[in-house]
Amino acid sequence: MEIKVLHQVMEWNQDVSSQVRQTLKGHKVCLINFMGSPGAGKTSLIVELIRRLRSEYSIGVIEGDIAGQIDADRIAALDIPAVQLNTDGACHIEAMSIQNILPCFNLDQLDVIFVENIGNLVCPAEFDIGENFRITILSIPEGDDKVAKYPLMFTDTDCLVLNKCDMLPYFDFDVERVTGDYRGVNPQAPLFLVSTRNGQGMEELTERIRGQIRAFLQ
Amino acid sequence: MEIKVLHQVMEWNQDVSSQVRQTLKGHKVCLINFMGSPGAGKTSLIVELIRRLRSEYSIGVIEGDIAGQIDADRIAALDIPAVQLNTDGACHIEAMSIQNILPCFNLDQLDVIFVENIGNLVCPAEFDIGENFRITILSIPEGDDKVAKYPLMFTDTDCLVLNKCDMLPYFDFDVERVTGDYRGVNPQAPLFLVSTRNGQGMEELTERIRGQIRAFLQ
Repeated sequence: MEIKVLHQVMEWNQDVSSQVRQTLKGHKVCLINFMGSPGAGKTSLIVELIRRLRSEYSIGVIEGDIAGQIDADRIAALDIPAVQLNTDGACHIEAMSIQNILPCFNLDQLDVIFVENIGNLVCPAEFDIGENFRITILSIPEGDDKVAKYPLMFTDTDCLVLNKCDMLPYFDFDVERVTGDYRGVNPQAPLFLVSTRNGQGMEELTERIRGQIRAFLQ
Repeated sequence: MEIKVLHQVMEWNQDVSSQVRQTLKGHKVCLINFMGSPGAGKTSLIVELIRRLRSEYSIGVIEGDIAGQIDADRIAALDIPAVQLNTDGACHIEAMSIQNILPCFNLDQLDVIFVENIGNLVCPAEFDIGENFRITILSIPEGDDKVAKYPLMFTDTDCLVLNKCDMLPYFDFDVERVTGDYRGVNPQAPLFLVSTRNGQGMEELTERIRGQIRAFLQ
């Protein structure tokens, strides 16, 4: 599968995210924004969700990276339409970039677009890219103090995934501390303990996302 | 030990980093800037370096965080002068903040200031804070594709630390890939394979930093 590579224009337009949302609503395409630190496992999670959802929904992927197309190559290998968005140094994706990319997809043939944001626990949380649903991924090796230290990423999300939970025996990570901190800033949104490597928690998470997509498409 | 908490003013002044460097040179204080993703182990590395260097050098620490003072508490517990810099959402430290903080220290009684930057593999690399020496920390669980995906952090550094190397058996991490990518963008700077948990590689790294401080103070 061919990969298109686009470069982010560093303009900011507050109206663009609602335009993106409107366009996608018109085509009945649900946009899900995946955010987290470098190495949290965003691409692996997207790959696992594609495996579990592709028989039900037609999926496309936008891979945000500062440089290169390592992640888009992984997605395209699954024969899923993938666009690599290179920000050329910028630390987050903006709605303007999503708007510029949408014509690369045949929106009438898609149900869902997964957007993998830049690996960064800070800046992406500040930018509405027109998504319908945000997922924050925190991996066990990053430590259990991250909600307190990077609050916005956990406050402004619809779902928290604690990934690499197969690594819990090897790290001093207190799941209850993170759960408590998360509940403190975001009482409503769910939390899933997941390992993309051994599949733990993936069924529950997939069911949740399936429900969100279904609710949107109705 | 009492912790001062300051808030970063979001102004940018290109001259400030050289002013900071000049001030520190006048007082013979070496500034070292520690950068890396959330959870890479920056604070643990600083704690271990303090343990190994405090008998030779008088050390102060500036702890950069979006919010809270978890890390400064850890440093102050060692009876080391620590200032918590809260950026209130900003994704990096700027030289202006360092300049505002310097009067909190008695510079004539210090040899070294360690600055722990915001956990972020992108933005901090773009900002010269007046440091004499940069250290980039990448931890094994983050994955071996990070040099290719976040090049500036590895290009503009004086030293790369691969931390949590005790975790190599549990992750698919190719040290040679990272080493090769790093050599490709930064042929001169050294690389250290380290575990702050079991001490592996810490002696070699400490010796390198000791040499840098000594060279500066001469």
